[in-house]
Amino acid sequence: MKILILNGPNLNLLGARDSNYYGDLTLDKIEEIIKKEFPEIEFEFFQTNYEGELINKIQNAINNFNGIIINPGGYAHTSVALRDSLTECKLPKIEVHLSHLVNRENFRQNLITASGCDGYISGFKENSYLAAVYLIIKMIRKGS
Amino acid sequence: MKILILNGPNLNLLGARDSNYYGDLTLDKIEEIIKKEFPEIEFEFFQTNYEGELINKIQNAINNFNGIIINPGGYAHTSVALRDSLTECKLPKIEVHLSHLVNRENFRQNLITASGCDGYISGFKENSYLAAVYLIIKMIRKGS
Amino acid sequence: MKILILNGPNLNLLGARDSNYYGDLTLDKIEEIIKKEFPEIEFEFFQTNYEGELINKIQNAINNFNGIIINPGGYAHTSVALRDSLTECKLPKIEVHLSHLVNRENFRQNLITASGCDGYISGFKENSYLAAVYLIIKMIRKGS
Amino acid sequence: MKILILNGPNLNLLGARDSNYYGDLTLDKIEEIIKKEFPEIEFEFFQTNYEGELINKIQNAINNFNGIIINPGGYAHTSVALRDSLTECKLPKIEVHLSHLVNRENFRQNLITASGCDGYISGFKENSYLAAVYLIIKMIRKGS
Amino acid sequence: MKILILNGPNLNLLGARDSNYYGDLTLDKIEEIIKKEFPEIEFEFFQTNYEGELINKIQNAINNFNGIIINPGGYAHTSVALRDSLTECKLPKIEVHLSHLVNRENFRQNLITASGCDGYISGFKENSYLAAVYLIIKMIRKGS
Amino acid sequence: MKILILNGPNLNLLGARDSNYYGDLTLDKIEEIIKKEFPEIEFEFFQTNYEGELINKIQNAINNFNGIIINPGGYAHTSVALRDSLTECKLPKIEVHLSHLVNRENFRQNLITASGCDGYISGFKENSYLAAVYLIIKMIRKGS
Amino acid sequence: MKILILNGPNLNLLGARDSNYYGDLTLDKIEEIIKKEFPEIEFEFFQTNYEGELINKIQNAINNFNGIIINPGGYAHTSVALRDSLTECKLPKIEVHLSHLVNRENFRQNLITASGCDGYISGFKENSYLAAVYLIIKMIRKGS
Amino acid sequence: MKILILNGPNLNLLGARDSNYYGDLTLDKIEEIIKKEFPEIEFEFFQTNYEGELINKIQNAINNFNGIIINPGGYAHTSVALRDSLTECKLPKIEVHLSHLVNRENFRQNLITASGCDGYISGFKENSYLAAVYLIIKMIRKGS
Amino acid sequence: MKILILNGPNLNLLGARDSNYYGDLTLDKIEEIIKKEFPEIEFEFFQTNYEGELINKIQNAINNFNGIIINPGGYAHTSVALRDSLTECKLPKIEVHLSHLVNRENFRQNLITASGCDGYISGFKENSYLAAVYLIIKMIRKGS
Amino acid sequence: MKILILNGPNLNLLGARDSNYYGDLTLDKIEEIIKKEFPEIEFEFFQTNYEGELINKIQNAINNFNGIIINPGGYAHTSVALRDSLTECKLPKIEVHLSHLVNRENFRQNLITASGCDGYISGFKENSYLAAVYLIIKMIRKGS
Amino acid sequence: MKILILNGPNLNLLGARDSNYYGDLTLDKIEEIIKKEFPEIEFEFFQTNYEGELINKIQNAINNFNGIIINPGGYAHTSVALRDSLTECKLPKIEVHLSHLVNRENFRQNLITASGCDGYISGFKENSYLAAVYLIIKMIRKGS
Amino acid sequence: MKILILNGPNLNLLGARDSNYYGDLTLDKIEEIIKKEFPEIEFEFFQTNYEGELINKIQNAINNFNGIIINPGGYAHTSVALRDSLTECKLPKIEVHLSHLVNRENFRQNLITASGCDGYISGFKENSYLAAVYLIIKMIRKGS
Repeated sequence: MKILILNGPNLNLLGARDSNYYGDLTLDKIEEIIKKEFPEIEFEFFQTNYEGELINKIQNAINNFNGIIINPGGYAHTSVALRDSLTECKLPKIEVHLSHLVNRENFRQNLITASGCDGYISGFKENSYLAAVYLIIKMIRKGS
Repeated sequence: MKILILNGPNLNLLGARDSNYYGDLTLDKIEEIIKKEFPEIEFEFFQTNYEGELINKIQNAINNFNGIIINPGGYAHTSVALRDSLTECKLPKIEVHLSHLVNRENFRQNLITASGCDGYISGFKENSYLAAVYLIIKMIRKGS
Repeated sequence: MKILILNGPNLNLLGARDSNYYGDLTLDKIEEIIKKEFPEIEFEFFQTNYEGELINKIQNAINNFNGIIINPGGYAHTSVALRDSLTECKLPKIEVHLSHLVNRENFRQNLITASGCDGYISGFKENSYLAAVYLIIKMIRKGS
Repeated sequence: MKILILNGPNLNLLGARDSNYYGDLTLDKIEEIIKKEFPEIEFEFFQTNYEGELINKIQNAINNFNGIIINPGGYAHTSVALRDSLTECKLPKIEVHLSHLVNRENFRQNLITASGCDGYISGFKENSYLAAVYLIIKMIRKGS
Repeated sequence: MKILILNGPNLNLLGARDSNYYGDLTLDKIEEIIKKEFPEIEFEFFQTNYEGELINKIQNAINNFNGIIINPGGYAHTSVALRDSLTECKLPKIEVHLSHLVNRENFRQNLITASGCDGYISGFKENSYLAAVYLIIKMIRKGS
Repeated sequence: MKILILNGPNLNLLGARDSNYYGDLTLDKIEEIIKKEFPEIEFEFFQTNYEGELINKIQNAINNFNGIIINPGGYAHTSVALRDSLTECKLPKIEVHLSHLVNRENFRQNLITASGCDGYISGFKENSYLAAVYLIIKMIRKGS
Repeated sequence: MKILILNGPNLNLLGARDSNYYGDLTLDKIEEIIKKEFPEIEFEFFQTNYEGELINKIQNAINNFNGIIINPGGYAHTSVALRDSLTECKLPKIEVHLSHLVNRENFRQNLITASGCDGYISGFKENSYLAAVYLIIKMIRKGS
Repeated sequence: MKILILNGPNLNLLGARDSNYYGDLTLDKIEEIIKKEFPEIEFEFFQTNYEGELINKIQNAINNFNGIIINPGGYAHTSVALRDSLTECKLPKIEVHLSHLVNRENFRQNLITASGCDGYISGFKENSYLAAVYLIIKMIRKGS
Repeated sequence: MKILILNGPNLNLLGARDSNYYGDLTLDKIEEIIKKEFPEIEFEFFQTNYEGELINKIQNAINNFNGIIINPGGYAHTSVALRDSLTECKLPKIEVHLSHLVNRENFRQNLITASGCDGYISGFKENSYLAAVYLIIKMIRKGS
Repeated sequence: MKILILNGPNLNLLGARDSNYYGDLTLDKIEEIIKKEFPEIEFEFFQTNYEGELINKIQNAINNFNGIIINPGGYAHTSVALRDSLTECKLPKIEVHLSHLVNRENFRQNLITASGCDGYISGFKENSYLAAVYLIIKMIRKGS
Repeated sequence: MKILILNGPNLNLLGARDSNYYGDLTLDKIEEIIKKEFPEIEFEFFQTNYEGELINKIQNAINNFNGIIINPGGYAHTSVALRDSLTECKLPKIEVHLSHLVNRENFRQNLITASGCDGYISGFKENSYLAAVYLIIKMIRKGS
Repeated sequence: MKILILNGPNLNLLGARDSNYYGDLTLDKIEEIIKKEFPEIEFEFFQTNYEGELINKIQNAINNFNGIIINPGGYAHTSVALRDSLTECKLPKIEVHLSHLVNRENFRQNLITASGCDGYISGFKENSYLAAVYLIIKMIRKGS
């Protein structure tokens, strides 16, 4: 079982961002924790600031992965293009956010990409990723 | 460790509701799965159709539980009173939904109670509860 | 044939409310007129000011009644929970209002519960109930 | 007692329109059922696709009829002119719709003409007309 | 002269809630202060988290009290049913809030129940109640 | 100098409509007053309930009249088609209303046709027409 | 008969403002034309850029004038205070604008002060004032 | 193959309207160009300013034509009735506009009738019609 | 202890305004009642129709008064400048209204200045001022 | 004559996307059909998921092409940057969409890039491209 | 070269206002810094809390100054009258704000007066004025 | 002192864009003027049409520059991702625009990225950059 974990713009800055929202860990550290908690799963971690590159990754995932976990960062609220690529991709897909978006700015309440995924997790800092892995394994195993 | 799992209006009908949104399981069956997956944890399950009774339960939780998982059903979109009681309660709290709300009616995009919780999970049918338990254990252990 | 006629908050005050909107009759008097006009039908009349109690009644109706007529009072404009319980209930269901809502306050134009019913009647004072009975009999007989 | 039953644009197509919304009957068939159910009442049935012609009919009704039942079709959501003519007409007036408008497109939630009538019935297919006749007879007899 | 002082959801938590908004006193302490400041008046204090129970209380007040002071808590912003029951009740009625609502969340700017009362006081913490008693005595004495 | 005075839907009912808004005079009486006040001007008066007929009249006015005064009735708030025909017509054009629209329903604040005219007069009952004639004579004489 | 003609902010600049909207005449010239056209009427002309001074003038008009014509300039769209003073003043009152406001910026579509007047004239440049005088004379003579 | 080309209000004025939006050609000239470019197709051209007449034409098209091209003029933005008649008609249908509507007034962004057609072309002046014919021939031939 | 009582535009007209909203008393009479009810307090009463003069008064209050009671009249709904001057002023401040604003026009629901004050009282006619004095004395004494 | 045909994000997936909206053909197949229908024209086809790359292509088109046909995919609804680059480019430009956007999600009704083009075609699946080529040839030949 | 620097309501309080938004300097101190940085320029500094007085100053500037720098304070968001006077004035004009308005309350996002100026500077505390002088000198010298 | 000047999409086209909005200079020419006016400062100029590349540049600026001046072009109104990267970057940052945005299209009033900067300058064509340099030097020197 191989899972693609995509991170969008500014998530490479984790560890330096506001810890109230994002926790204290770097992205590398989060990846390490994920691998330790789920040693039986193969992961590919990918971060980019380019909307187009995220779309390319999603389009190519179908033949190489069993599921996608995506934190689209700021593109979550604006990108119809990213949403369309997720909708087209027939893998299990989960959108995660580190911060609890309902308690942030108005423009972060507009969820565009989430409706291209199967489910949504928000607010648990690094644990959002862990729960997403925990869930996507169940989804992949159930075959839905 | 003792966790309160609250279910709001109409969740007693699970198993009979639209399975595309809610899955096929009854609430009893979901409780059984939760207990089986987390045998080391003590749970109280409580369902009611009364908004006031949910508020009472939350107000009294502080001395009896280590965390709250709540699926407020339709009150998620309308109840300022429920949101206030959650905000007042200083336990770890997670809001869960069986269905993926971003893909449903407009009035379900208005999340009132969620901002009284620490995080939000939506769209994984019965697994939404399992992920919530998985996460709240981490939150309780970390003491935040 | 047995029909449940549910009345929500403040409808127990009929007779004392503004007769321009609600007519001059008490709820008891309306029940009497209904029974007189449709002597062949068995009715249960139920009024409550509790949203949760209305939901309970609807959830339990499926095994005891052939159809539901509901005047949700003020909950008509706010209760997603009530709407969900009506949607789940597979009996013929009609929402009635005594007053002609389109000519009242803005917040009464927001119809939340009505979309959980099969049809909608508004503006005929006590006759709204009579027409609802007249119609639900046809619906029950036609088996739709 | 003589009642005018007005049908607006596209209602001449009944029987060919989407039966989920409109039922299976032609307008002629509906007229036949109405006459059969209320043999003691005299009816005039009139259908037109012209907004102006509906207004003319309403303006002239006062001297020839005891009440008006109108299904304004698409003009229900746009015609201030039709609303004004209904408001001016001092006969009992009921607006009917075959389909349950609250469950349809957003632009059908805008009810312009309904506030020129005394009451509103929606969602019972051909039975909407029958209930309207049932009610308008009571209104005419009561003299209000 | 007998005055009913109603408190809605979560007001039983006073003393533990954010003192910037609500002050430092418990509801019991506030009641004590009120009685001390107005020893000549008879009071009944009632708190509940149930919307339906507030409505019941208001409906029954007419024969037992000379005036109503109500802090509807979160129901102030959502309850059409509560508003209707206040409108029906022909006693002097004042809505009070501890916090200064204009400086809080957007959803607290929507005042539904206030228009069922005769006046509105907001922002003076426990003193909001005292001013309400001070005013309602004048209203009752003046007979309006 | 020849002036076309167009009246839209329901203005043939003047004299019977609410005199607070529309004054007490019939359309015939208003025409008589206009002719008496401006005996040197030739008028054509035309009333119809058909939107299409108003458009036809405006399209044909250019060769037969020196100016147009129009009271579009309810079409003032909805008719893009009427607005377009007025915009195309290169005669002096004035929109008049008997009632003071700013003090009426929300949907009457939407002025669609007015922007196809050169100016706007509202609220002076029959005198609105007189002022329009007074003004259009100046406009025609000035040649603008 | 004595009429007060009030001009609000920036109307002292007429003659220098955009002639497409405001015509070519100075305010002095407009006053001269008014006096020439209505020699039998006594006028007071008053212009100020101060909102408060306009309100003072209106409050004091009742004992000194038979009617008020006001061009509130930019205050037309923002001043609740000016609107209230007009509403209180029981003289005939007409609001005039030189330009045709429906064809200008969005914020000029918000008419606050107009609803404190009896009628509204817009778009005829200096002739807007003449028509207002023509009308207010009729209103004063009729005693309404 | 026979195609109905419907033109709504004010399109009979082409040639005289603003050429920036509508081009320089009269409707007759456009018809001539269409016939010359597609000599193998039979056309009926019909223009009317009446909404009701457009609806009549569409209702009767099913037995006489293979496809409909409609430029609804101003009714495109307001007519639910026209939209319903197009939706009912099971022929290939294309809505065309001469001007590029996205660059015009706000009220022209509201497309009501277009959703009753299969596709939409806007902005190519007379060529909009030619492209519509080019396309509808393909649609008719493909039988969809 | 010295309290400044500011009254904004049109409040000098009290006694002549609509008594349903404002009561029957003149401003002078209200001042007399205040002084009689609170003989131990020194008051300065000041009314003006000028927004700028209200701001000046507030800016200068800090050295001369212990608290401010302000009825901003129509400026309550529009004046950001007044709100800013209140926010800057570090005295106890209460906004009062004679009428119950929630039951009046939409534009009176927009409360701009209130958020520059510590609390808000609305709907008790002249008693609104008395309650404000009653409260501000407590606030001043408590030193908050 | 050389035409640039630009395709934005996810259009490389055609053939696999929902055929109700997009038809059954791959992008390669569509290109083949275009070349076959217009053998005399030279085309460059370019697809990318990067917004920036589309902008680069448009900026460089002026010296290498006679016209641009663009299907911006999801960027049609969000990209001000793409719109600006189209506005700057002085070639004939047409926006095309395979699906009929007026019948899809709300966020697809927001057309940002279209106003940077000369015209708009939507809803004809692969034929949208053919009609665009058909039209742009006319536009290039006419030199406008 | 002579420049008018206008300051609106509450700017006379600088030094005492919230330094996060406004910096620590008094208006006098800011004037001193400006003169020191631009010793070759003649300045007039003027502050008032009256909207009407700002308008007067702007109307009279044309003959006495080469440019205007204005900080309208709270009137920036509400004053159509001020905007009109700025639009009429044909001098170079710059609007400045000390605080960074995009990060403040919603009602401060409404910029009414700014569109009457040539440019806009916001967020640099006292340096906003210096940059405005730096720029207006260039504008005056360039003669645009 | 080293300053990064970032230019977003389409700013490489300056000199060819509408000079009313953008002035006549190319980006190269603007850079030349900046260097000439501030010869003591080191600059890096960077333009790209890629949102992702702008984010990369900002993320890497912290170690190489003392301040950032950014003209985000069209991304100013849409890019949450760019805003987040600016917010994270702890250098002095200024957003500049050549044109005066308040006088342009509605969608340009939505300022997303500006709130990630310390201040905002708009409307001075090439001088916007000069003023930004003038200001950022002060900000860097002051160390805030």
